[in-house]
Amino acid sequence: MAAAAQLLRGAARAPPALCAASRRWLGSAPPGVPAVRGGRRWAVAAAGALGGLGLGLWRRRASMAAAEEEEDEEEEVRRRFMAPPVSGLRELRRRRRELGSRMELLIMETQAEVCRALAALDPGASFAVDTWERKEGGGGISCVLQDGEVFEKAGVNVSVVFGQLSEEAARQMRSRGKALKATEDGKLPFCAMGVSSVIHPKNPHVPTMHFNYRYFEIEEADGTKQWWFGGGTDLTPTYLNEEDAVHFHKTLKEVCDKHDRKLYPKYKKWCDDYFYIKHRDERRGIGGIFFDDMDSPSKEEVFQFVQSCAKAVVPSYVPIVKKHCHDSYTPEEKLWQQLRRGRYVEFNLVYDRGTKFGLLTPGSRIESILMSLPLTARWEYMNTPPESSKEAEILEVLRNPKDWVH
Amino acid sequence: MAAAAQLLRGAARAPPALCAASRRWLGSAPPGVPAVRGGRRWAVAAAGALGGLGLGLWRRRASMAAAEEEEDEEEEVRRRFMAPPVSGLRELRRRRRELGSRMELLIMETQAEVCRALAALDPGASFAVDTWERKEGGGGISCVLQDGEVFEKAGVNVSVVFGQLSEEAARQMRSRGKALKATEDGKLPFCAMGVSSVIHPKNPHVPTMHFNYRYFEIEEADGTKQWWFGGGTDLTPTYLNEEDAVHFHKTLKEVCDKHDRKLYPKYKKWCDDYFYIKHRDERRGIGGIFFDDMDSPSKEEVFQFVQSCAKAVVPSYVPIVKKHCHDSYTPEEKLWQQLRRGRYVEFNLVYDRGTKFGLLTPGSRIESILMSLPLTARWEYMNTPPESSKEAEILEVLRNPKDWVH
Repeated sequence: MAAAAQLLRGAARAPPALCAASRRWLGSAPPGVPAVRGGRRWAVAAAGALGGLGLGLWRRRASMAAAEEEEDEEEEVRRRFMAPPVSGLRELRRRRRELGSRMELLIMETQAEVCRALAALDPGASFAVDTWERKEGGGGISCVLQDGEVFEKAGVNVSVVFGQLSEEAARQMRSRGKALKATEDGKLPFCAMGVSSVIHPKNPHVPTMHFNYRYFEIEEADGTKQWWFGGGTDLTPTYLNEEDAVHFHKTLKEVCDKHDRKLYPKYKKWCDDYFYIKHRDERRGIGGIFFDDMDSPSKEEVFQFVQSCAKAVVPSYVPIVKKHCHDSYTPEEKLWQQLRRGRYVEFNLVYDRGTKFGLLTPGSRIESILMSLPLTARWEYMNTPPESSKEAEILEVLRNPKDWVH
Repeated sequence: MAAAAQLLRGAARAPPALCAASRRWLGSAPPGVPAVRGGRRWAVAAAGALGGLGLGLWRRRASMAAAEEEEDEEEEVRRRFMAPPVSGLRELRRRRRELGSRMELLIMETQAEVCRALAALDPGASFAVDTWERKEGGGGISCVLQDGEVFEKAGVNVSVVFGQLSEEAARQMRSRGKALKATEDGKLPFCAMGVSSVIHPKNPHVPTMHFNYRYFEIEEADGTKQWWFGGGTDLTPTYLNEEDAVHFHKTLKEVCDKHDRKLYPKYKKWCDDYFYIKHRDERRGIGGIFFDDMDSPSKEEVFQFVQSCAKAVVPSYVPIVKKHCHDSYTPEEKLWQQLRRGRYVEFNLVYDRGTKFGLLTPGSRIESILMSLPLTARWEYMNTPPESSKEAEILEVLRNPKDWVH
């Protein structure tokens, strides 16, 4: 029922608003159709909508032509995405020239592309797909594969949320240099969307990978819209494999160079600086690229760049998984992996801006935010690897980041 | 050598300062004796000092009578403590009427008492004792038992640190309502000391226990000294055992009631409020007592109360460990324990004020601060225990704290 309700609501007229999702959410639901979405496994809900009461209700209200269109949409959603987009496919199509809509399609396609590429590597396992709604506005789709043969935990999230920026979130943004003029009652309408993923493999010779691409819009008191993109892709190996490090960075550099040769060196350094665990004086991993507040040269050009980065996720990472996922390993190597997972948790809970933003935003879906944490982690008191060991080798590059490509 | 150096330095004259430790540190070391301490296992260092070059050097400089006194002190340190006190036993004796010295002796004795009581329950394991120095002033003693039969990880730390408050730490204190007047160059001399401990047992039927008792002094620009005590003891069971919960709370209540019948209800609630994992809407555990900024009715009375609380740690917890450490358990129960350990990590890294203060204080010993993290932890996406299960039972009291004694 909920799936049918979404598509119907997508067709409702709504006043102009920040993004397709907010327009759709603000539009009133047709009578008799509950204005709710989410909190369920989509595969199940969609099947229910096709055969159950929901679709029956919907059929009485819509013409046969509309029903066929609906079925086409369901089919297209199945082919292109992991679940129906938060803003509804129809609304996205109608507003297809708007950047928010194009970005939502991109993050949806990226989610599906990455999930399918990973699922192909771990045939016994599959992604559970959850759609969820944020009562303050918007929602998301979380895809998680847990305890597979190849992946310990792999999550790929999409979220499209909007509403009023919390005071604490606005304060954090201002501290980053954003001049945000709120209305007299302190309101700052925002819309944020992104795809975010952390892949923790089982085998200690396969590195953890994280990527995130996001778009942010804020409407100031005078109607000015501020917008920016952010994102990045980075690698966290348990053990150093120089060939993998070079492949990963080379793939990202090639993508950056096509847009502007200044980007890779700048974003590579930003990545090393951002993923710094200050209290340990080490980076979370061997980096990649990271950027934020990107709002030039133009909306179109930045979007094109972000699109190229998103398309590079699979080619930068999947070959490394394929190469090592059947490597043999010792219990000591597994133990070292678990200790490194502990550091991953430290970074994410103590420093990560995205996690903090999530924990501060009322109505956030905690399970999706903390999906980035590994299945298992370990903390030993005073574990110091012996000099010249493989464990000391990776620590050395985490303390002194290297240039992997020139 | 270092142990002998400490005791010699303890005897040096020093200008008046906040606490015994700062006085001792500020006093210059006698010629030829290196002014260093720490970064080593004390048991080894002390043995070296008795037989090796260090004591030889010392003997040439000191009279036979002083050497005997030294041996008496070594003996007393061995009997009463896990390692020599940061401020030196002689300095503490000389300033024995001062509250800072009495508190340092109390935290040292508490450390030894708890370590010995736990070690007796886990005969195959023993506490590693590390002494460390903070180059900005002060130091500490960390006792850690790891991967024993009964305890997965048990740490009992003492630290006595002093110096200038960092700007961020002062800001945090002001945000708690402290009016701190810094000198013109922004300096705020402080001295902080405490004993802090987290005990993570292996068996999921034995709860995790945490306690911490601390004393803080700050000297303002006009010479005014602000001081306060803080602390608490709290329990984090994996499964609810009402009898244990009642025993634990009853022991704490009896201690509080002897000082003031208003204390237990107030500090029990404070504990439930403090150990709140906001993003999960649950408490870390079933509470106990917690208080901070305690500076009335008088220094003496507050100290007496803190002393009673510290003495209650062993009787509140050890009987529970004894009762359950040989209980049988299933792999599913162990798994649930690991998930709860994950929540413990979330609280400590995201919310805990002590951890934050530690991470913000330059020169902090990270290994001692993060010793509170469990050996192993687990995060599963969307783990929700079935209704009426034992797992749901504990979640219920974490969401809605209960009164265990009246």
